[in-house]
Amino acid sequence: MSRFFSSRLSELTPYTPGEQPQERKYNKLNTNESPFPPSPLAQRLARQEAGSLQLYSDPEVKKLVEIGAEVFNVAENEILFTNSSDEALNFCFIAFCDETHPAAFPDITYGFYPVFAQVNHIAYEEIPVKEDLSINVEDYLGIGKTIFLANPNAPTGIALPRAEVERIIQSNPRNIVVVDEAYVDFGAESCRELIYKYDNLLVTQTFSKSRSMAGARLGFVFGCADLIADLKTIKYSTNPYNVNRMTMNAGIGALADDAYFRKNCQTIIETRAFTQKALTDLGFTMTDSLANFLFVKHEKIGGKELYLTLKERGILIRHFETDRLKDYNRITIGSMEQMEELIEALKEILQ
Amino acid sequence: MSRFFSSRLSELTPYTPGEQPQERKYNKLNTNESPFPPSPLAQRLARQEAGSLQLYSDPEVKKLVEIGAEVFNVAENEILFTNSSDEALNFCFIAFCDETHPAAFPDITYGFYPVFAQVNHIAYEEIPVKEDLSINVEDYLGIGKTIFLANPNAPTGIALPRAEVERIIQSNPRNIVVVDEAYVDFGAESCRELIYKYDNLLVTQTFSKSRSMAGARLGFVFGCADLIADLKTIKYSTNPYNVNRMTMNAGIGALADDAYFRKNCQTIIETRAFTQKALTDLGFTMTDSLANFLFVKHEKIGGKELYLTLKERGILIRHFETDRLKDYNRITIGSMEQMEELIEALKEILQ
Repeated sequence: MSRFFSSRLSELTPYTPGEQPQERKYNKLNTNESPFPPSPLAQRLARQEAGSLQLYSDPEVKKLVEIGAEVFNVAENEILFTNSSDEALNFCFIAFCDETHPAAFPDITYGFYPVFAQVNHIAYEEIPVKEDLSINVEDYLGIGKTIFLANPNAPTGIALPRAEVERIIQSNPRNIVVVDEAYVDFGAESCRELIYKYDNLLVTQTFSKSRSMAGARLGFVFGCADLIADLKTIKYSTNPYNVNRMTMNAGIGALADDAYFRKNCQTIIETRAFTQKALTDLGFTMTDSLANFLFVKHEKIGGKELYLTLKERGILIRHFETDRLKDYNRITIGSMEQMEELIEALKEILQ
Repeated sequence: MSRFFSSRLSELTPYTPGEQPQERKYNKLNTNESPFPPSPLAQRLARQEAGSLQLYSDPEVKKLVEIGAEVFNVAENEILFTNSSDEALNFCFIAFCDETHPAAFPDITYGFYPVFAQVNHIAYEEIPVKEDLSINVEDYLGIGKTIFLANPNAPTGIALPRAEVERIIQSNPRNIVVVDEAYVDFGAESCRELIYKYDNLLVTQTFSKSRSMAGARLGFVFGCADLIADLKTIKYSTNPYNVNRMTMNAGIGALADDAYFRKNCQTIIETRAFTQKALTDLGFTMTDSLANFLFVKHEKIGGKELYLTLKERGILIRHFETDRLKDYNRITIGSMEQMEELIEALKEILQ
């Protein structure tokens, strides 16, 4: 840290993204990427824009908003597209937290929440999950803080039923509840439709996983018109052209090709079921994940050892070096071939 | 504003981007875009990535950093690529301003500086420019604040010689000076090489103007290794994958095709000289711009009237509705054909 660095940020611990090794080709099951390329239509539309990059993107991303409103059955002022759902989440911390509205989220969840709180000088409470790593809904009822809830949660994949999330929203009418649905498309219940019932609800989603666009950076957020307007104020105060021309077009293509999206989600769900069974047969235990990853441990091998052993063999999974998580690893659901290679490697390692 | 919006931001006034009308084709001279498409190599490399968007971009953007370091003759830890130079500027506000380090910048300059200060809860001083709209260097000597200096300045295009900027940097050794060189490639002196001499200097640049990539969102910042490390801390605390895959590749292509870049800059400089002369012949007066725009006024027609009259004719220029600027308009230097169309229209309007 240089001597010029803001004293307000001296405690800041940045987020650690999953490894993105460039030097070697891995069976890459560590960052929850889709094993499928983006929709051919998304690719084609993205390519079309490469020759027009001298022009700014439309700050209102009008064409994307139009199709988004149609596909998700919301009004155009109830959806905002962002540079990844990370940006949407950061906007929520900036817009809806302050001295009298600290943040609250589970102690085991997406690792970026405490970082967003810190970088925005916002106090936060980390609410312990239960022994089985699930969220105790009672802990969030009427707590009077701005709540961030990943559903399904990360890195466990455990999802709350919509009715349970609704209890939290309903019991905190003076505070915003942000439901982070990055992984919702793989079998969990979305809270999107609840935006019509609650003016304190925001729901974030992403094109990164289920729409195969992690490398394009596109997310979106649903909420009542007033809340979306607030988030636009933050957008226009930080990053007005937040969706670049190529990504906007890719997003339009991805939304238009709904069949491709649905087929891929279904394939991931089936491959997840296959992998769950195969890992269980090998003696792994795991949380009940509704995401495109499994969170697994094995009593015969430590989490870090398994991670390192697989890495040596060219298979990358995600290990978290914290006390409550260190026995586990998070394994992305890739293609069937990727998972079969993983299972074979695990058989050899465990024999 | 909803009842949930942070009370800390109640005074926030978002940035107003230039119009990006989607409904009609204009002779668009209002947002300083390049009239030339990106380098064919940049286009080709960008297109190549459309089929790999399911994978996250490299958070270290290693290949882009490698070529950037080579082209600009800096070490790899002395350059950081960002999602537009706006992001680099925002990072500087976050990292290098706090209660004891307020910001300072000219009262006439890039309109985003006060917005960045406000959204980050940073106090700022707006230092009046001189009657001729130029910056008075004396006003910045030893002021003990984090200084943001657009050079050439916006929307005037007036540039300080490097030696004058150096006086400011040298006289504020306990504070960061950020030199925003968005428009430097059209004839002004860059302060880049001063990063070896001063550990309190950051220099931001962009691919938006001279490299025809406004719609791709790519900027960069030079500084000593310690300062770049600080900015990386902010990047990893807000937007780790800030450069998407397609934009990274476009950037690599743009940097590799240096001849195309130089030729386009030269053409803009020549077209600017042509336009300056033609406008002067029509009775316009203007600041001495070294940017890809002119800042002009005419005693026979008000600024807003001229803007509206041209807009009706399908020519878009940028008008600023503030007291000291309202007689002026900012006109982007486009292609020779675009400028000839403008001159013809002005002849008719003024006759």
